[in-house]
Amino acid sequence: MKISMYAMTHDVFKKSLTQLLVVMEKGVANAKARNFDPNVLASSRLAPDMFAFARQVQLTSDFAKNSIARLAGVDAPKFEDTETTMDELVARVKKTLDYIDTISASALEGSETRDIKIPLRDRTVEFKGLPYLQHWAIPNFYFHFVTAYNLLRHNGVDVGKRDFLGG
Amino acid sequence: MKISMYAMTHDVFKKSLTQLLVVMEKGVANAKARNFDPNVLASSRLAPDMFAFARQVQLTSDFAKNSIARLAGVDAPKFEDTETTMDELVARVKKTLDYIDTISASALEGSETRDIKIPLRDRTVEFKGLPYLQHWAIPNFYFHFVTAYNLLRHNGVDVGKRDFLGG
Repeated sequence: MKISMYAMTHDVFKKSLTQLLVVMEKGVANAKARNFDPNVLASSRLAPDMFAFARQVQLTSDFAKNSIARLAGVDAPKFEDTETTMDELVARVKKTLDYIDTISASALEGSETRDIKIPLRDRTVEFKGLPYLQHWAIPNFYFHFVTAYNLLRHNGVDVGKRDFLGG
Repeated sequence: MKISMYAMTHDVFKKSLTQLLVVMEKGVANAKARNFDPNVLASSRLAPDMFAFARQVQLTSDFAKNSIARLAGVDAPKFEDTETTMDELVARVKKTLDYIDTISASALEGSETRDIKIPLRDRTVEFKGLPYLQHWAIPNFYFHFVTAYNLLRHNGVDVGKRDFLGG
């Protein structure tokens, strides 16, 4: 067994995206049990100037697919961020899982030293592959996944850490 | 440059714990600016049955120090979880940073295949080192760090993603 860039991206994101599906399914089931439209959850926020749940899920998806693609030196598919319902968000996560499975372990070989450029609105951030993984891809991915989880938890959905982590 | 267990624990935790200090300092400054006791933040929660901010910080600390210690095959120091003020929590994070710096890169060599046993209240979880890192140490660490961040953000503290990620 070796520790590889692939193990720390593909395998980590795959497991956590799978748990995001579990967490979202619990959100939908809980809304139905409490007799409100599950899609209300998709537009809920932790603060008025924070992104809503739907955007948190889209960003979790983006950090998974874009990170692994940049490390592989390919262009990730652009997803249009049009999802507004829980069903559409579940489909987005499944599409992300399908995409990351198209990247092979060999495509990430040597990616720890690859030059990564991230175009942001106001600047371009540059990294070598390893610090990009350590200090950008992983923290950003969990930033949005955990916020999505916290949004449901704050709204009374009965999710717990085992749903977040998985078995 | 090689990707190592040390790079994915020590370096990741060190950067993020340093940003946790930045986020907490902003919380304290914001409370002072809004004329309330900063320690109110320490007992704030996102849901009545979730851990308060203080416990989220303690657990962020625990997942950093315990994860790196287990991978190194040593016992982490036990911190008593008595912190209730922001100053005490800042000290806890600094103590954690000091501790993880005592673990050398060589202590984690080969740790990807080490047997890791985690005693929980109701069961013992067993992993090899790499899946422990991928599916336990990193997700748990960010689970509590991001929740602490979200708690402050939800309470109107002017933190943003740049504070979370760092430069």
